[in-house]
Amino acid sequence: MNRSALYVGEQTFVVEETAPVPPGPGEVRLDVAYTGICGTDLHIAHGAMDRRVRAPAVIGHEMSGRVAEVGAGVDGHRVGDPVTVLPLDWCGECPACRAGHTHICHRLTFVGIDSPGSMQRSWTVPARLLVQLPEELPLAHAALVEPTAVAVHDVRRSRLVAGEHAVVIGAGPVGLLIGMVARQTGAAVTVLELDPRRRALAADLGLATVDPATIDVAEYISEATGTAGADVVFEVSGSAAGVRTATDLLAVRGRLVVVAIHPTPREVDLHRIFWRELEVIGVRVYDREDYAEAVRLVHGGQVPADRLITRIVPLDEVAQAFQALAAGGDVKVLVDCGGDA
Amino acid sequence: MNRSALYVGEQTFVVEETAPVPPGPGEVRLDVAYTGICGTDLHIAHGAMDRRVRAPAVIGHEMSGRVAEVGAGVDGHRVGDPVTVLPLDWCGECPACRAGHTHICHRLTFVGIDSPGSMQRSWTVPARLLVQLPEELPLAHAALVEPTAVAVHDVRRSRLVAGEHAVVIGAGPVGLLIGMVARQTGAAVTVLELDPRRRALAADLGLATVDPATIDVAEYISEATGTAGADVVFEVSGSAAGVRTATDLLAVRGRLVVVAIHPTPREVDLHRIFWRELEVIGVRVYDREDYAEAVRLVHGGQVPADRLITRIVPLDEVAQAFQALAAGGDVKVLVDCGGDA
Ligand SMILES: [Zn+2]
Ligand SMILES: [Zn+2]
Repeated sequence: MNRSALYVGEQTFVVEETAPVPPGPGEVRLDVAYTGICGTDLHIAHGAMDRRVRAPAVIGHEMSGRVAEVGAGVDGHRVGDPVTVLPLDWCGECPACRAGHTHICHRLTFVGIDSPGSMQRSWTVPARLLVQLPEELPLAHAALVEPTAVAVHDVRRSRLVAGEHAVVIGAGPVGLLIGMVARQTGAAVTVLELDPRRRALAADLGLATVDPATIDVAEYISEATGTAGADVVFEVSGSAAGVRTATDLLAVRGRLVVVAIHPTPREVDLHRIFWRELEVIGVRVYDREDYAEAVRLVHGGQVPADRLITRIVPLDEVAQAFQALAAGGDVKVLVDCGGDA
Repeated sequence: MNRSALYVGEQTFVVEETAPVPPGPGEVRLDVAYTGICGTDLHIAHGAMDRRVRAPAVIGHEMSGRVAEVGAGVDGHRVGDPVTVLPLDWCGECPACRAGHTHICHRLTFVGIDSPGSMQRSWTVPARLLVQLPEELPLAHAALVEPTAVAVHDVRRSRLVAGEHAVVIGAGPVGLLIGMVARQTGAAVTVLELDPRRRALAADLGLATVDPATIDVAEYISEATGTAGADVVFEVSGSAAGVRTATDLLAVRGRLVVVAIHPTPREVDLHRIFWRELEVIGVRVYDREDYAEAVRLVHGGQVPADRLITRIVPLDEVAQAFQALAAGGDVKVLVDCGGDA
């Protein structure tokens, strides 16, 4: 039998026995080891996406596991293979797909939001979504490949290189991952964060941190860069103040990467964008290249998964996992789906 | 003797005899043929920049002329050479200059605003600012090299290529020049303009035009691009509505070039920037490479100077020239400074 955490609406999960889905042609059934919870999952659990996620629904897309059953016509994957999933499915026909930007397909299906996800013991997905993992990589760590791929994508789009100075505004899980991936380029990285717990955590991970409530950040970055300003700012706070700070800090030809989701339009200092020839760069999810680099960074320890995973909760207690994450203080909370036997 | 149009403050010019400035070492004295009036000059004439431009001042920077006198130590320029001026002077020492972005120097001097300009018969400038012109290029046409270089710079920063679709929001002089330079890349170009006179002029120049007051622009561009959207939008209107339209029209990975000066922050749809991985690109002035291309385009007629110059006014009637430009209906108004004898 399968066991699934079902989001039933009204901010409620129930965990129950469900029938495993046999893999059809081109599909595989996975034994799910771990599923991480991200900000979007939290949004869903809080009922904010009830129009998009039709209850009852299994959500979850930051996962690791092993191939349990292989459908007809699937090549290159065998029972027992450690894998994660790149949870995007695209149409292949829209202008974005035809231009090669399949990850921003006009009709993108985000697996785990728009279709069933991995917060269950047994998960059946198209084999084309699989990403093979190194056998030596612990499956718990591998659940961090997906959020790391987000950070890899964001840093790649920023064109950050060694010798440059990057600022990360906001030290939630995504901000921390961006900070660590950015550091791998050889760039200097400064993290701005108001919350003292998050700031302490960033410092523990070896990132330079600044409290923007007590330090004049513009002056600080100006001094740190010999009056040039920051080459790249990652806006991960989602706040109006973050956007304002970002344009203030940037050097001539600096790049502002809009990572956070800003649900309403924000006032942006277009005069500063003109005056310093700044760039604003939108970023969304990732592609296979980002996944490959993310596997490398988690496997190599440059992204220290063991320090970022602050809690692992059994599938039957999924509600507590969401509560813990909502309470703050955790970085990454994993749901143990039972497949890491 | 020299004869200069002096801005004396309080929105007033006086034209009077002045002493010609003999060229010092590294300088040249020019006989000014023509000086075009741009939007910034109009701003100055309206008193909006009285804090930056200290009266009495000679303004003007869109010029053409001939070398009249050569100072000590100047190589490569001879009396009679047809020239224009690249009116930027930089410090060479700030972070922007050291990074090679001298045109956005932290301490940039804009010649004709921050130092004396070309709205006079005789003008003395550092020889390093000179740009040589082809002998066959009429000097009146050559006065359009500077604004054309702005358009060349903007189109270059947009990375527009053949087969793409560009939208220009606003068909003032800069918008028209961008439209014509953009067309040279082989891209399709659509110009949005509310004013019927400006729209008719753009159409006369062979540009596809749309009245955004009567046509659903998003639908129009969607149809024109097979639902993809525009690859590049040049925001030249300076309006909040222009910024909103720009993000609405752009395709996945599209680029919004912020050409107009927006004196106050604007609401920008950062969600759309995220969702389609858009880029916003700041652009400011030009460099030598842009000037070389601008000379080529004006000389080759791809930028039809004769059709863009709608009025030439003698230096003694400079006030009328500003009045005509402010009244609208003109594209490019030149002041005849007397050096095209
Ligand atoms: Zn598609
Ligand atoms: Zn400089």
